[in-house]
Amino acid sequence: MAEGQARSGIDRWEFYGGEAADGLTEYWYPVMPSRALKRNKPVRRKLLGRNLVLVRDQGRAYALDDRCPHREVPLSMGSCEFAGHITCVYHGWTFDLASGVLKAALTDGPNSPIAGKAKVRTYPVEERAGMVFAWMGEAKPAPIEDELPEELLRPDARAYWLMRESKGNWRYASENGFDEAHNKMLHRSSPWVLFRRIPAWNETEIIKTEDRKWIARRQREMHMSDQYPGLGRWPRFNFWQRRSRTVLASNAHTVSMRLPCLLRVIQPGRGTWTHFNWYMPVQRDTYRDVVAQVRWVNGWWRRLAWWLRHKTYIWVFHRHHFLTQDMAAIAAMPDTHPERFFRPDISIAAWRRLVEDEARRPPPRTAPSVAAE
Amino acid sequence: MAEGQARSGIDRWEFYGGEAADGLTEYWYPVMPSRALKRNKPVRRKLLGRNLVLVRDQGRAYALDDRCPHREVPLSMGSCEFAGHITCVYHGWTFDLASGVLKAALTDGPNSPIAGKAKVRTYPVEERAGMVFAWMGEAKPAPIEDELPEELLRPDARAYWLMRESKGNWRYASENGFDEAHNKMLHRSSPWVLFRRIPAWNETEIIKTEDRKWIARRQREMHMSDQYPGLGRWPRFNFWQRRSRTVLASNAHTVSMRLPCLLRVIQPGRGTWTHFNWYMPVQRDTYRDVVAQVRWVNGWWRRLAWWLRHKTYIWVFHRHHFLTQDMAAIAAMPDTHPERFFRPDISIAAWRRLVEDEARRPPPRTAPSVAAE
Amino acid sequence: MAEGQARSGIDRWEFYGGEAADGLTEYWYPVMPSRALKRNKPVRRKLLGRNLVLVRDQGRAYALDDRCPHREVPLSMGSCEFAGHITCVYHGWTFDLASGVLKAALTDGPNSPIAGKAKVRTYPVEERAGMVFAWMGEAKPAPIEDELPEELLRPDARAYWLMRESKGNWRYASENGFDEAHNKMLHRSSPWVLFRRIPAWNETEIIKTEDRKWIARRQREMHMSDQYPGLGRWPRFNFWQRRSRTVLASNAHTVSMRLPCLLRVIQPGRGTWTHFNWYMPVQRDTYRDVVAQVRWVNGWWRRLAWWLRHKTYIWVFHRHHFLTQDMAAIAAMPDTHPERFFRPDISIAAWRRLVEDEARRPPPRTAPSVAAE
Repeated sequence: MAEGQARSGIDRWEFYGGEAADGLTEYWYPVMPSRALKRNKPVRRKLLGRNLVLVRDQGRAYALDDRCPHREVPLSMGSCEFAGHITCVYHGWTFDLASGVLKAALTDGPNSPIAGKAKVRTYPVEERAGMVFAWMGEAKPAPIEDELPEELLRPDARAYWLMRESKGNWRYASENGFDEAHNKMLHRSSPWVLFRRIPAWNETEIIKTEDRKWIARRQREMHMSDQYPGLGRWPRFNFWQRRSRTVLASNAHTVSMRLPCLLRVIQPGRGTWTHFNWYMPVQRDTYRDVVAQVRWVNGWWRRLAWWLRHKTYIWVFHRHHFLTQDMAAIAAMPDTHPERFFRPDISIAAWRRLVEDEARRPPPRTAPSVAAE
Repeated sequence: MAEGQARSGIDRWEFYGGEAADGLTEYWYPVMPSRALKRNKPVRRKLLGRNLVLVRDQGRAYALDDRCPHREVPLSMGSCEFAGHITCVYHGWTFDLASGVLKAALTDGPNSPIAGKAKVRTYPVEERAGMVFAWMGEAKPAPIEDELPEELLRPDARAYWLMRESKGNWRYASENGFDEAHNKMLHRSSPWVLFRRIPAWNETEIIKTEDRKWIARRQREMHMSDQYPGLGRWPRFNFWQRRSRTVLASNAHTVSMRLPCLLRVIQPGRGTWTHFNWYMPVQRDTYRDVVAQVRWVNGWWRRLAWWLRHKTYIWVFHRHHFLTQDMAAIAAMPDTHPERFFRPDISIAAWRRLVEDEARRPPPRTAPSVAAE
Repeated sequence: MAEGQARSGIDRWEFYGGEAADGLTEYWYPVMPSRALKRNKPVRRKLLGRNLVLVRDQGRAYALDDRCPHREVPLSMGSCEFAGHITCVYHGWTFDLASGVLKAALTDGPNSPIAGKAKVRTYPVEERAGMVFAWMGEAKPAPIEDELPEELLRPDARAYWLMRESKGNWRYASENGFDEAHNKMLHRSSPWVLFRRIPAWNETEIIKTEDRKWIARRQREMHMSDQYPGLGRWPRFNFWQRRSRTVLASNAHTVSMRLPCLLRVIQPGRGTWTHFNWYMPVQRDTYRDVVAQVRWVNGWWRRLAWWLRHKTYIWVFHRHHFLTQDMAAIAAMPDTHPERFFRPDISIAAWRRLVEDEARRPPPRTAPSVAAE
């Protein structure tokens, strides 16, 4: 309809521009808050193009492919008739939650020949910091402790989780998260920064953190306001705006990113807290924004203070305005997503390089994953 | 997105898995209740992928393809300007209801050269038991009395008709209707069976009825409750549940199915009535659930009692819960509908065999059906 | 699904049936009312398959492709940070409204190497008669005065503009506009003609107007009512219906059509006014009905009278019933739009011939339209 569109720079990356579009499989992903998974109430969640059914049985969480091999009706419509099992609503096929093996087809009697001869895929599940994580890979799961930020696992971590689904591919959402320059324009109108001075532009470099797990931005030079030829001075601050504490803390690695799709932003200053953000692949054109906002506090009084601060100020201004600005920009990008890079996009390029070079890939296929025993 | 999906067993059937997907053409189908087709008010209905316009003129019902050959505007937007004819709203092309021949193009004057040179396809129509039936076939229509259950045509039959459209292919809806095992699981939670004991499983065979028109299920053995190894006893009944009268009547052919897509369930016991259910093809991914619930009664008092019973108990519990469970299961099946059969699916296999072996097929094509005279 | 469908007659025209489907590019088109384009408030509008951003800056209107070349986020989400420029909301890329050249990438500082090296396409814009017009062509724009009806440009013209989007290709909407016969059937039920006698059929010829810009219908013979063999007399008038003044004026060219998609209907009699109607291509399956209803009046009293008449009688009966009948017919045509012509369709054939023979075509491609300077 329009003239020949520029191809996206993404296409130049073999893995990142190709297979990675549907998500990196060999990782742990946050699926749903632990408290929302109630005993014996199957729940359906989609991630990486797959529908999972999650079940809590005797305290433990399980995840299986959400379809009965008989007629492909979702198991999440079913029920927990027997401890440790899920039963399909349609004909009573009953699967072992741990192994996925069909233990009985109730409506065919105890001697049904199909028992033991069908199976649904199961996914390893762990719960940490109030969240259910599932391993989506084909290979043996990595230890979850190696994959989650260690500060999130500390006993004094108080995490508030938020999940929202939005239009857009997970890679564009991840790029937006780690992208430096958009903060200086897109979020300038946010009430979140009403009292802060956001610099006009920075000179930035991307480094690896010492533990080699994160890439982080480091500001070499910061320009609060500048004179643009033919245009004038930009930006103009209001008297009530303070020089941002983000700026002061800029030599700390306040913004960093790691595989598979996790952003970490350390909020500077007294009362510091950390914003973790997974950009979860749901399906090719949809991602789930999974946010954990964490502070490390002991004592009921400090916990209450953090709870209050989060449910009021942070909830309203950070979540409901700041993060929504990001979602709107990502949703407005066309699917083909042509692009033309400028200097600050070194942060996006570094992220792409990280996925291309270091992301675990699925092992070569040997056998179909849904098979009779 | 996911791993290679199993192909549906349906694909193994040449006709049932292929051409039959859009519906069997050489049959009579229920289209709309007679009372809803008012004089000179054209009505649009879709079945077997075709849009029909239905018109009542001087008491008789007619059905034609719902498109004017001139610019393809639906004739159902038109009006009855002359007895026995329908006139297109757009340019006044006027078609004979009985033959479909273009009798005049009003806006081109009485001497319009196009008159008599265009035609729309007409469909034979009959009305029985308060329902308008249309013959969708290419061949000469079969006598409608041979195709409708004779008990539905009895003068003392009091039929209540219900029509609902839902997502899903008509074949999966038909299979669900005749399928034995799902009753024992899917409907167990329905208030309709609150006071009945549904058996755990049956040993069943499929027979032909004596008139050779229906296939029917016959229970050889019934197991009210059983012990499943490693799981326990299932189901557990409540003290208020009686052994179902369905069970008692099980050697009668209470559930039977015939071409093109008609299920019959004889409700057992005193006050017996019969549930007829057509699974009407609308288009590939949509079917219409056409239900006639019939009792044979004489005298105003008995009729009133049946009316009351239907509008209260049956309406609420059978239609609005029981039948909706079926619809939800059918709608939840993926379009590709892979499957893995178990023993009770002999009823589905018998139905597929019936269609494959006995369904009338359209005659070989000789001429286009819409042609100049 | 149904039998082999007739191919549309449109397919027989090489240009009209092909490339023209998305709209004729080398023309001026009405985009939005001038008063709706407020200072420094970017507005998004789609036409001919392209999204434009419109901006008013220091009184002048500008139009550009609505996407920033950086990450393809719409510029209409942006703001006017500097006079004569638009700034992308995402990273502050700032484009000159007149040339489309990237003047600065704010978040990369004044010395950003990308400045001057990217460009978005701009569209010539003119405002006339209270409407913003954009030139959508690749070639040098024609003088807008040559393309708009001169009577619309007269200083005493009082135009009321109305825009509505509807389903359908712009060519079918244009054909419907100029089509003669549908008036005699489709609009017969409109309250707009409650007091008029619409003829049954006319003998018509299509002529070119003296200025060679319009094709117009001329009635050679008019038949108010006629006797149709086998059907009877049609139409039957009511005693309160007068012989339409349209009829009396029939030798004037009351209905005419010109490129790219503009219909003109001169309303006859005392108090005459003119209905202009553009059938704007939005995208392949959507058009925008852009209506200007114009009367030429001086003096506040006559202007008030015209305003009152338009906002009451014309608004209700012409716009909200008469024009909606056209929209419903166009929306009801299937996308494939097979057709079978009859005599009155000479008006449609003449319109197709006009586009095929006289519509300006884009110049041969030489260079990509979005390029670095």
